[in-house]
Amino acid sequence: MAATRIADLLKSGQPGDSTTIQGWVRTKRAQKTLCFINVNDGSCMSGVQIVAESDMAGYDNVISQIATGASVEIQGTVVESPAKGQRIEVKAEQIRVFGGADESYPLQKKRHSFEFLRTLGHLRSRTNTLGAVFRVRNAAAQAVHEFFRDRGFLWVHTPILTASDCEGAGEMFTVTSLNLNQPPLTKGNGVDVEQDFFGKSAYLTVSGQLEAEIMAMAFTNVYTFGPTFRAENSNTSRHLAEFWMIEPEMAFCDLMGNADLAEDFLKYIFKAVLDACEDDMAFFNQRIDDSVLATADNIINNEFARITYTEAVELLLKTDKKFEFPVEWGIDLQSEHERYLAEDLFKKPVIVTDYPAAIKAFYMRLNDDQKTVAAMDVLAPKVGEIIGGSQREERLDILETRIDEAGLPRDAYWWYLDLRRYGTVPHAGFGLGFERLVQFMTGMGNIRDVIPFPRTPDNIEF
Amino acid sequence: MAATRIADLLKSGQPGDSTTIQGWVRTKRAQKTLCFINVNDGSCMSGVQIVAESDMAGYDNVISQIATGASVEIQGTVVESPAKGQRIEVKAEQIRVFGGADESYPLQKKRHSFEFLRTLGHLRSRTNTLGAVFRVRNAAAQAVHEFFRDRGFLWVHTPILTASDCEGAGEMFTVTSLNLNQPPLTKGNGVDVEQDFFGKSAYLTVSGQLEAEIMAMAFTNVYTFGPTFRAENSNTSRHLAEFWMIEPEMAFCDLMGNADLAEDFLKYIFKAVLDACEDDMAFFNQRIDDSVLATADNIINNEFARITYTEAVELLLKTDKKFEFPVEWGIDLQSEHERYLAEDLFKKPVIVTDYPAAIKAFYMRLNDDQKTVAAMDVLAPKVGEIIGGSQREERLDILETRIDEAGLPRDAYWWYLDLRRYGTVPHAGFGLGFERLVQFMTGMGNIRDVIPFPRTPDNIEF
Repeated sequence: MAATRIADLLKSGQPGDSTTIQGWVRTKRAQKTLCFINVNDGSCMSGVQIVAESDMAGYDNVISQIATGASVEIQGTVVESPAKGQRIEVKAEQIRVFGGADESYPLQKKRHSFEFLRTLGHLRSRTNTLGAVFRVRNAAAQAVHEFFRDRGFLWVHTPILTASDCEGAGEMFTVTSLNLNQPPLTKGNGVDVEQDFFGKSAYLTVSGQLEAEIMAMAFTNVYTFGPTFRAENSNTSRHLAEFWMIEPEMAFCDLMGNADLAEDFLKYIFKAVLDACEDDMAFFNQRIDDSVLATADNIINNEFARITYTEAVELLLKTDKKFEFPVEWGIDLQSEHERYLAEDLFKKPVIVTDYPAAIKAFYMRLNDDQKTVAAMDVLAPKVGEIIGGSQREERLDILETRIDEAGLPRDAYWWYLDLRRYGTVPHAGFGLGFERLVQFMTGMGNIRDVIPFPRTPDNIEF
Repeated sequence: MAATRIADLLKSGQPGDSTTIQGWVRTKRAQKTLCFINVNDGSCMSGVQIVAESDMAGYDNVISQIATGASVEIQGTVVESPAKGQRIEVKAEQIRVFGGADESYPLQKKRHSFEFLRTLGHLRSRTNTLGAVFRVRNAAAQAVHEFFRDRGFLWVHTPILTASDCEGAGEMFTVTSLNLNQPPLTKGNGVDVEQDFFGKSAYLTVSGQLEAEIMAMAFTNVYTFGPTFRAENSNTSRHLAEFWMIEPEMAFCDLMGNADLAEDFLKYIFKAVLDACEDDMAFFNQRIDDSVLATADNIINNEFARITYTEAVELLLKTDKKFEFPVEWGIDLQSEHERYLAEDLFKKPVIVTDYPAAIKAFYMRLNDDQKTVAAMDVLAPKVGEIIGGSQREERLDILETRIDEAGLPRDAYWWYLDLRRYGTVPHAGFGLGFERLVQFMTGMGNIRDVIPFPRTPDNIEF
């Protein structure tokens, strides 16, 4: 059943070509002796227009079965299109209907809210907007692999299941194979986790970073790209309980090398998506957020600004702009501060480095001033923080002290500390949430609309 | 700190080139006025030989700090190597030791069992064998994306968390955010799952297939590549509780199209790995399993045999070979039967199709004979089943009957059935476990040695 992808046909089809097209009917417009059918196979935004004339064999029967949502195969000939905005169309010689769709098909021509479409997770990818989102998502995901592969990075699969409940990045889900209604109990009447699948409590990972560090200490440059989890009860347009994260980790790399990679990475992904999904990106700019193309252009064509946290605080104190959260050295920058820096002041992405140690994770490398760490956040216009990373503490004694100060148990980190005992090296890495990146690229307002099957509090359908 | 990857240096370095190398010391051999140091950065199997002479500045001090496991940076000049088996080596002009490694470093020169190395999950990637495994794993994973991307398939991220406990492929882990020691209770004293994170019971997925079908009904050709889970208490060399699976799904595709894709896929991945990891594959052939290269050659250069299940049973009944499990029409083929077909009889991969409906999943398409389904298994010499797939049942009434016959609740499949109500099409797909594929390629005996951080019963370290 070899058919031509509609994206390929629209690009390279020539009048006179014989072609076979397969897809789903988006619209049908029947006239007396003529029927126009728009067919889409998901390969691109615009479907192809099929023209069926009443002298086609079985015309009446076939046309009666065709409705929005029906699946069809068309054999025909490519012809020049007299219609505006399309180079070619297909004159049907034979139409086969695989499956109909009656009036109950929920995606009739009228527009639907994204909220309503979320209740149709099994059908919403057939709409223009969600179709475009998932093509962009795929193009960005492929570009992630290309970017790292071309630079000699190994894709490493860090574990989803972990026994460590002190990764520190957020609330964790518990994973168990026990019967929760009749769990085995210890003498003290607690659940006997020794009888659980792993012989101890198990959780879903919040980050692959610590294990990625293991792999970087063997392969120099590695990255993860996989699902991570948060059990936080955050019902917002920016939070998911399950999302995909990208985390490169580089041995023999310092904070500036890390910042260089982050900048190259963002430029590469935006450029790759613009190249691969030109029509989809134009659609987002027209229908969803008219700054999407300008933002991409801003990312690709500007050298990112680089300032320290201390400089950032000085700049924030200097401005006349009023902030809800008052600024002083030591605070965690709020979204309003981050957006002021990137959007109003620099008008381009800004990499802020060297944050106060007190507000950052224990594994970030302590600077010589003893009060800041070699952390970095990449702030982008419109969204604020898009990437967070750091040089890691590679000195055993300082790392041990930092673990103690954070109130964490050294024992749990025995292998992480071993990496500093045996051939330790300066190393660095960053993380970014893939869905936030897709949201940023497409301008989609709710993160639930950039992942095929969103998981949020009280929501696990499909 | 821009250094040259050792893989690149060994390939293209020319005598006279200045170079900087970073990596970890594998071996050190000190003579009176000379020291040979083998340095490895994980980019390839063989490290580069560094020659330091005693007239180098700080020679004594530096050499005293260098031991197996230490991390170093060497600036020097590429010279022709007088040693056998290496084209070039590096004459050191300056050596910097980042981190030492004392006698307690567990990976001293002597060989270690893979079982012992599993207790060193944070260090074992620095050994020759595990290093080779994870380079092959990366090359295979990259090839998976290339294969599908080049054919216009979208990579779709199907959910890890699912509310459906009836996917049918195996035992599932439960995921919860409740405090297991003090869970909220219903009036009947059961755990009140309505108060859990998702408002109902949640599990870790065993397959992304059903959701991949959703996406194929919008984008025609899609694939998943992500982690899946089994809570089965299987302590074998072939089972993991967490493993990565690849599942393509194609609309407008029948069983033979599915078989074609599976065959093309395996040939492509093997070829890509042989191209990318020539030295690593030669190592496996020499040290782990001397049939590894012949097997790869067999996969790449033979047209796979295709027979029906019924023909397979006839062939098994005809042979004089004695089987432990007796053969008759209706049985599930055992590993001994599968290996006989692929290894002894056809001496190449065999695709067996059209299995008895009674032993296959409800979603496989019922054949016209009413007793077999359009299933396929790809059997390979040495391992037996490596891929399993089917054409899916696209006819609503038959699918409903099959769900009833399997004793499953129709309600749970409302959206899966909707796909057959609205624009249903013939479609097909297959699944393969990525770790089994890597095991097959490398000849590694235990599946725990082809994933960085294996999860098995009572084992969740690192």
